[in-house]
Amino acid sequence: MNLLLLTAQDFINPTTAMVCDRRYTHLMEIHKVSPGSQVRVGLINGLQGDAIVSVIDGQRIELSVHVDQPAPPPLPLTLVVALPRPKMLKRIFQTIATMGVKELILINSYRVEKSYWQTPWLTEEKINEQLILGLEQGVDTTLPSVRLIKRFKPFVEDELPGLCQGKRALVAHPKQAVPCPQASNQETVLVIGPEGGFIDYEIDKLNQAGCKTIHLGPRILRVETAVPVLLAKLFNL
Amino acid sequence: MNLLLLTAQDFINPTTAMVCDRRYTHLMEIHKVSPGSQVRVGLINGLQGDAIVSVIDGQRIELSVHVDQPAPPPLPLTLVVALPRPKMLKRIFQTIATMGVKELILINSYRVEKSYWQTPWLTEEKINEQLILGLEQGVDTTLPSVRLIKRFKPFVEDELPGLCQGKRALVAHPKQAVPCPQASNQETVLVIGPEGGFIDYEIDKLNQAGCKTIHLGPRILRVETAVPVLLAKLFNL
Repeated sequence: MNLLLLTAQDFINPTTAMVCDRRYTHLMEIHKVSPGSQVRVGLINGLQGDAIVSVIDGQRIELSVHVDQPAPPPLPLTLVVALPRPKMLKRIFQTIATMGVKELILINSYRVEKSYWQTPWLTEEKINEQLILGLEQGVDTTLPSVRLIKRFKPFVEDELPGLCQGKRALVAHPKQAVPCPQASNQETVLVIGPEGGFIDYEIDKLNQAGCKTIHLGPRILRVETAVPVLLAKLFNL
Repeated sequence: MNLLLLTAQDFINPTTAMVCDRRYTHLMEIHKVSPGSQVRVGLINGLQGDAIVSVIDGQRIELSVHVDQPAPPPLPLTLVVALPRPKMLKRIFQTIATMGVKELILINSYRVEKSYWQTPWLTEEKINEQLILGLEQGVDTTLPSVRLIKRFKPFVEDELPGLCQGKRALVAHPKQAVPCPQASNQETVLVIGPEGGFIDYEIDKLNQAGCKTIHLGPRILRVETAVPVLLAKLFNL
């Protein structure tokens, strides 16, 4: 945790916050804070700054909070990912939040197993838990939005062309592709397929919606590796 | 598994291999092979090509093997990483093998907990298991070498300056650093610290050994994310 994230509910007055839960444990056991310790803090969807530990009782830490700095700039990106298997999901939520993605859309695709949509990791609460861990790692305060879209065709036919309009629109896929373009700060839509890749029909549909097919060289990366690699290639981090 | 890796022991004659173990299960359950199916194969530290399934009995698959293509080019990199916590290790071994790293050196550092060196995941057998999974993912056959160096100072003073000689030598660290340089195919030594980072003394020593300090922007990445991001930034994959 490189940043302690606070919500409005944590404040007992405008400049004093009280934290308990896992944050208490983390501050005590990992940061080993004591009264007077300084901690980097941020308000969810707000500013960031520093806090001084004023009081520690058995289960709570009181902090005197001063925030005046903006969150780091977001990536100018809408990231569309075919729903990965549940054990990858947590890591992907954390990674995208850490790296500054603010719009994630999880879509269905032919090679996404139906059972993946049933995982308990897709409730709003569980998703936000992972996103917050990612923001704390990445020293960011702006919570990404995550949308779940269970039908591929209506999304790709009716919504994606509008999303892609006037932007750099890309789908990462190893076949019939051009090399990944260079880093820029251009508004981008990036689509990443499931393990095993999109099927030809899906690639055709994505191309029709305006997405150009790009590859990352001869090696096939797991989705959880492809995400950071593509973000690193496409943006000036 | 995008490539089935074979060893000399799998061959019953120069062009026929017999696989059992987890590879049998994977071919049957995931690839759903039957006699006549074609499978992409490679020989560990050798060529790659295709194989045709000739016979399946209850526990073994016989393959008729034809290999004539070289492994994809390796990254021109010696990667030095402060030993990560055990639960990250498996993923890091897999990721570096998938991405084409051929020389990994795991070193000690002030913020590496001593207990990490005791993990069962550091035996040669366990390391190779993970590297092979990474190669199968990345469609590569050349097994990376992994060295374990439990003393920081003698390595950085006596060996690292020689390793860095004539190469692009870098240490990734957020403070007093220049932005990560652009992708090239230059021979590179890249040093990555532990969670919490190197201490100032260690950065001084690494700088003295010839490593320039580079950063990845305002966000702090986990080691498992920093590795693919740095490789993507530094090399034309």
